Amino acid sequence: MTTSNTHAPGAGDVDPAVREELARLRDSIDNIDAAVVHMLAERFKATQQVGHLKARHQLPPADQAREARQIARLRTLAESAKLDPAFAEKFLNFIIAEVIRHHERIAEDTAAPPRD
Amino acid sequence: MTTSNTHAPGAGDVDPAVREELARLRDSIDNIDAAVVHMLAERFKATQQVGHLKARHQLPPADQAREARQIARLRTLAESAKLDPAFAEKFLNFIIAEVIRHHERIAEDTAAPPRD
Repeated sequence: MTTSNTHAPGAGDVDPAVREELARLRDSIDNIDAAVVHMLAERFKATQQVGHLKARHQLPPADQAREARQIARLRTLAESAKLDPAFAEKFLNFIIAEVIRHHERIAEDTAAPPRD
Repeated sequence: MTTSNTHAPGAGDVDPAVREELARLRDSIDNIDAAVVHMLAERFKATQQVGHLKARHQLPPADQAREARQIARLRTLAESAKLDPAFAEKFLNFIIAEVIRHHERIAEDTAAPPRD
């Protein structure tokens, strides 16, 4: 089978230089995503430890004063990095919602009677 | 004013060793968050460039084939990092939704007649 020289319609109909530039940017995006996924894996390792600590010592899963400090700090960091602070706040809330779900699960498992 | 030695009720009533361990874990979480915010700032710089490139060459803001590849790749990376793949997918969708909003805004600005 030989490769056809005819162009596919629509998105296929793109200048090779543009396609190359798009590929270059997407490679960077993919590298960043891999880094972020690994950072988030490490973050959840830490929050799982926090969850176990809280469950063992009957501390509440959510801590609103801590969350308010985290949000204020991330908004400041976002501004200096030229990232929309509102997006940084939405992002942290997205992560914290997941963390609280994990902590509630840990608290339930810790409080549950041993299973046979 | 002197610092009171009496304990506040509730969360204040915690063993100092536990409090120290919690502070240690939270410092790590804060470091990771700072790293992630800076990675995301860099990611949006790249996607803004993609947005301008797409707008200049009339490419559609969303690219479902690309997104499907990104999701499959991130799920695999998440698994090897012991991060819930379902969460990694939710996370990518959260980021992509923001990127598409940016791209649509760029496309609108590019298509708009010059303002005086």
